Amino acid sequence: MKEIKVVKQIMEWNDDVSDKIKELTASKNVCIINVMGSPGAGKTSLITRLIEELSKEYKIGVIEGDITDTIDAVKIDELGIPVVQLQTDGACHIEAMSIEHILPMFNLDELDIIFVENIGNLVCPAEFNIGENFRIAILSVPEGDDKVAKYPLMFSTSDFLVMHKYDMKEYFDFDDKRVEKDTLDRNPKAKIFRVSSKTGDGLSEFVEAVKDKVSMRS
Amino acid sequence: MKEIKVVKQIMEWNDDVSDKIKELTASKNVCIINVMGSPGAGKTSLITRLIEELSKEYKIGVIEGDITDTIDAVKIDELGIPVVQLQTDGACHIEAMSIEHILPMFNLDELDIIFVENIGNLVCPAEFNIGENFRIAILSVPEGDDKVAKYPLMFSTSDFLVMHKYDMKEYFDFDDKRVEKDTLDRNPKAKIFRVSSKTGDGLSEFVEAVKDKVSMRS
Repeated sequence: MKEIKVVKQIMEWNDDVSDKIKELTASKNVCIINVMGSPGAGKTSLITRLIEELSKEYKIGVIEGDITDTIDAVKIDELGIPVVQLQTDGACHIEAMSIEHILPMFNLDELDIIFVENIGNLVCPAEFNIGENFRIAILSVPEGDDKVAKYPLMFSTSDFLVMHKYDMKEYFDFDDKRVEKDTLDRNPKAKIFRVSSKTGDGLSEFVEAVKDKVSMRS
Repeated sequence: MKEIKVVKQIMEWNDDVSDKIKELTASKNVCIINVMGSPGAGKTSLITRLIEELSKEYKIGVIEGDITDTIDAVKIDELGIPVVQLQTDGACHIEAMSIEHILPMFNLDELDIIFVENIGNLVCPAEFNIGENFRIAILSVPEGDDKVAKYPLMFSTSDFLVMHKYDMKEYFDFDDKRVEKDTLDRNPKAKIFRVSSKTGDGLSEFVEAVKDKVSMRS
């Protein structure tokens, strides 16, 4: 089983680098937040909303992970926030080695929070620690309420679950109680939020929870 | 770059097995259709609709790929269609080696079409040929109109693109012309459909195109 052995090697290397990143960011009092979810779950729009709220108190940077292109990085740049675009050139997730390479491009002494927008993918990103302080998983209502059961690792390893595009709930057959139960069964400590970045509903409660978590960063 | 080298080794092995599968299915006059898309794009619901229409003329089997669970396989089984659940146990795509292992579980002399529902993921599945005759990529309206630009490989290697959940278009800021252009720029031969499995709109045209493609299978 050549393939399985190789993945383990990468994983161990990745986890070593992830630990090094945690030491560095702790010494600089910087909090890395790993934001994960499907393509189109609304990662960029939720990060944008968080930046609007959190930038009143915190200095923020963003690492935009994408297979190719700079569509999302341009949106963040327009907010006047320092942003680095990581292009994975086909790879389906971000590895700690890439974050280690990018961090020196920021002035860490002048930042409190770095959002990392991971590749749109419910599977692989969850397997790779990237030196983050905590994880936000986003599940948008149109994706369906069976996704926690079908892609359990992401939801069992994330501190926060955001049910996103919640204003669309009336148009979809989406059982939020099922999502909540499936998540808490696997991850009893998960905090769960129902948010619409479009209308702003549910946002303030989520922002407060993120602030609490950021305040525990060092 | 240890990691990249290893991926190439897997790729070459995978492509060899994919070619073997194509020889086998050609000899049996069976058509394998690789159905790909994000989590929640509606792969199972579209396959279900296709089965309803195509089973009048063709004998159909399904391989359901999932990380874990049997949620989708149960739905297909309820249609009275032979189905095998492939659980990838965490892996983010299906490889040809798994299809080669599963095919003997079907009676290929009594089948015309095998749908393979790939793992919900816009990235990795596109990199792996699984012996398919053709590919259907599904992009649902709620995912957003920038996905072809952001995840180009899947859309440049698929014969058909289905813009799915098209009945939801009025509720989302979704530019179907952009999706069409982004797809045809990368893949001029792609055939593009606007379908709602819920209302049935656009389905008959898509079914006819699938039939045409299946008729060219051997």
